[in-house]
Amino acid sequence: MPRYALKVEYEGAPFAGWQRQADQPSVQGAIEAALAKLEPGEHTIAAAGRTDAGVHARGQVCHCDLLKDWTPFRLSEALNHHLKPLPVAIVDAAQVADDWHARFSAVERQYLFRLVARRAPMTLEAGQVWQVKHALELEPMQKAAAHLIGRHDFTTFRSTMCQAQSPVKTLDALDISEVETEWGTEFQFRLRARSFLHNQVRSFVGTLERVGAGAWTPRDVRTALEARDRAACGPVSPPHGLYLMHVGYPSDPFAAV
Amino acid sequence: MPRYALKVEYEGAPFAGWQRQADQPSVQGAIEAALAKLEPGEHTIAAAGRTDAGVHARGQVCHCDLLKDWTPFRLSEALNHHLKPLPVAIVDAAQVADDWHARFSAVERQYLFRLVARRAPMTLEAGQVWQVKHALELEPMQKAAAHLIGRHDFTTFRSTMCQAQSPVKTLDALDISEVETEWGTEFQFRLRARSFLHNQVRSFVGTLERVGAGAWTPRDVRTALEARDRAACGPVSPPHGLYLMHVGYPSDPFAAV
Repeated sequence: MPRYALKVEYEGAPFAGWQRQADQPSVQGAIEAALAKLEPGEHTIAAAGRTDAGVHARGQVCHCDLLKDWTPFRLSEALNHHLKPLPVAIVDAAQVADDWHARFSAVERQYLFRLVARRAPMTLEAGQVWQVKHALELEPMQKAAAHLIGRHDFTTFRSTMCQAQSPVKTLDALDISEVETEWGTEFQFRLRARSFLHNQVRSFVGTLERVGAGAWTPRDVRTALEARDRAACGPVSPPHGLYLMHVGYPSDPFAAV
Repeated sequence: MPRYALKVEYEGAPFAGWQRQADQPSVQGAIEAALAKLEPGEHTIAAAGRTDAGVHARGQVCHCDLLKDWTPFRLSEALNHHLKPLPVAIVDAAQVADDWHARFSAVERQYLFRLVARRAPMTLEAGQVWQVKHALELEPMQKAAAHLIGRHDFTTFRSTMCQAQSPVKTLDALDISEVETEWGTEFQFRLRARSFLHNQVRSFVGTLERVGAGAWTPRDVRTALEARDRAACGPVSPPHGLYLMHVGYPSDPFAAV
């Protein structure tokens, strides 16, 4: 059975998250249903990041096993045909080794979080950014973010539902930039790590927003981190500003041959 | 009766266009209904550009007359409250002179058209860009666009429904750039003129796309222009890639005092 890696883009809003659920729409369920149109029977796919309800993806990666030999182009075209009209698209496909695993072979995840500060309600970007109605200061957020970089016990910043064995992770990057856009001042948080804990990015961003608003100091974030206590976390940001952008592998399965 | 200028952002999809219609939702109708919540009675507002069904706006400008003196901030907040949950937002407001007119005082309009070339269906940008599934060449489109700059009889590029008295207009800019985005190759057409004919931008872009695809040469566009014949136009692009970005006035009503 040849194995295929798929790069997937989706809008999170219509879904209860990546993971298949009995009675709610999921991205996994949508792709498995499309696979069943190509090769009848049960399909179970695995993804690099099991995004929560409402979270978007530009570069989610999953893999599937099929009976037939598909050219990657034909496979993605056929899946996209059957995924319509859902906001899920296979943007790349590649055949991979039988022991390649979208989740366990991954060595890096990159996330983007979009936070817009403006008074007027969002229109064209509604559902694609987190909006706050007050001004935010970039520099204190950057100072606070610096405390989070590196290897730490991130108990403060993970959901109590998190299933990871250890709360110790290494955060490689948390860069924040302020972009003047046609729809207001947008703060873009770009995060990179081998892996993330459940709700880690949203816990970071919700807490850093408090720093930007002046309610917390950068040092308060360090204190919260050192508390290793979920109760010390700031508010968790909503999901709809979050994007899974990229999953890194030792060798890029989608690299042009 | 004090007069107010409003800067309006909206997503075009839910509306039959700017202009109020008896039995279909319109942006004008939505704003007039919100005004009636502030001051009961009939309201009739005028806009700088009467955008078609599906066309978006970042910087549409309209004006309204009210009985009370409103601070611009309170006026935009109150209108945004009553516009919810429609994707229409008042992003700026200002009191203007009694003889100031959103349409007749305007001296410049700027439009953006977003055209994305990629195979996979759009997800997050669905409805906000025109997608084609083939590659496009930038340089021939730019060469063709150069033929359209300046003062011309644009009969070829205006709708047969156009109500303008003369087909002669001066096109000040038609810049095309190719942007590599996370969702594929996006071609951005930025146009600027004192005023535009009905369907002029969409007729330009639909024709230039044919040049980018190699079906037309740049010279074919010049020949089409010189024909002064609507039948010589290429296909008219769909509306949902088009944005009214900015309306210029001799003195910016929204300039910070």
